[in-house]
Amino acid sequence: MKNIKLVVEYDGSNYSGWQRQENARTIQAELEKALSKATGEDIDLIGSGRTDKGVHALGQVANFHTRSSIPGENYKYLMDYLLPDDITIMDSIEVDKDFHSRFSAKAKTYKYLVHNGPLPRALYRNYYYHQPGEINIDKMKRASRDLIGSHDFQAFMVKRAKVHTSLRTVNDITINELGDIIEFKIEGVSFLHNMVRIMVGTLLAIGRGRLEETSIPGIIQSKNRSMAGITAPAQGLYLEKVIYE
Amino acid sequence: MKNIKLVVEYDGSNYSGWQRQENARTIQAELEKALSKATGEDIDLIGSGRTDKGVHALGQVANFHTRSSIPGENYKYLMDYLLPDDITIMDSIEVDKDFHSRFSAKAKTYKYLVHNGPLPRALYRNYYYHQPGEINIDKMKRASRDLIGSHDFQAFMVKRAKVHTSLRTVNDITINELGDIIEFKIEGVSFLHNMVRIMVGTLLAIGRGRLEETSIPGIIQSKNRSMAGITAPAQGLYLEKVIYE
Repeated sequence: MKNIKLVVEYDGSNYSGWQRQENARTIQAELEKALSKATGEDIDLIGSGRTDKGVHALGQVANFHTRSSIPGENYKYLMDYLLPDDITIMDSIEVDKDFHSRFSAKAKTYKYLVHNGPLPRALYRNYYYHQPGEINIDKMKRASRDLIGSHDFQAFMVKRAKVHTSLRTVNDITINELGDIIEFKIEGVSFLHNMVRIMVGTLLAIGRGRLEETSIPGIIQSKNRSMAGITAPAQGLYLEKVIYE
Repeated sequence: MKNIKLVVEYDGSNYSGWQRQENARTIQAELEKALSKATGEDIDLIGSGRTDKGVHALGQVANFHTRSSIPGENYKYLMDYLLPDDITIMDSIEVDKDFHSRFSAKAKTYKYLVHNGPLPRALYRNYYYHQPGEINIDKMKRASRDLIGSHDFQAFMVKRAKVHTSLRTVNDITINELGDIIEFKIEGVSFLHNMVRIMVGTLLAIGRGRLEETSIPGIIQSKNRSMAGITAPAQGLYLEKVIYE
């Protein structure tokens, strides 16, 4: 039995997210279909975590077990023929029996892209969140420091999400300006549902002066979703990397 | 009567090109529909030239005449509500009565993007031409000098295209490497049908060693389409700018 690890890039625009569902096109289902064709087996793919409808990935990680004799590194070429062209296997490799794309993950990095131009752009519609007007980057940078560390992030979670604990650890946040693009990079051990998008929505509210630069500790303490900013839309979000030992 | 000039960006992925056609979704038709809604008139839009199915534009230019009192600069905001989000008006302005987006144009710049990575990428599928393997940039740069100037470009034109003359003038070609992206910028006074894509296909054949670095003068002289390289696919091509006095 082989354990194969895949690194997957996808354009989430035309999918109802990662997770297999009845009556919806999902990344996981497309991958499982293609892998089943390649191996002749029913493949159960384990993802590092879900991504929502419209969210993209540059480096989602998944693994599966197979008796197929196909060498691990060949899947990236094989899948090129079997997958729709908005999902691509960037790397494939046989890994240790114990490797589990979710449980073995040590951290994840997300990227969020904002287009800060006066008007929305046709070529950006599925890949950036358009936010015109003044955005103060320095305020956002200073405020972002208060999100780093281990906190109860209940205020930064979809309401009524069922979780054992809403304690999470954010390792780092960097914010860069490249012309009229603002790029957020957020690394954490793991994230609550919508947590990255709510953090970005809150930082943007601070950048736009709708929330105080110093408001984050109070929002965290409140554990109240309605104290934080909006959930920034899906199309600006990219699962960039899953980090293992 | 006002003459309004528009600068248009579009993602050509979901359109059958610029030009209005029966039973096909085109950029021109979508713009005319939206402009007719805004002005309450039947709008006839004059484009600087056609773009083919799948080709994008960063700065297509078009103009139209209207009796509407809407100030020229307001169209860019108005259209944001009336157009599908894969077409955007980047600028709108009232211009001189005599301005004609095609006849007044002095030159045009096209950009062509090639992804030279080992495997195709999901996020690049509609925006880059994927070409794996070794591509010699210096050879292409040297060969591109032979395309500059006024030549009979019949070998670089769709076969059987009906044109008065296939004499055209290429002002400049620059080729840049940015990581695994190769960017061609081609400026000319005007272009034949598919000329930019055939020039890129030919330069890539040279970069890959399938054609000699010195072969361009012979191809031009042959006036024979089959001597040149393939027509590089539509999705890598962007009409970047139309230049007026």
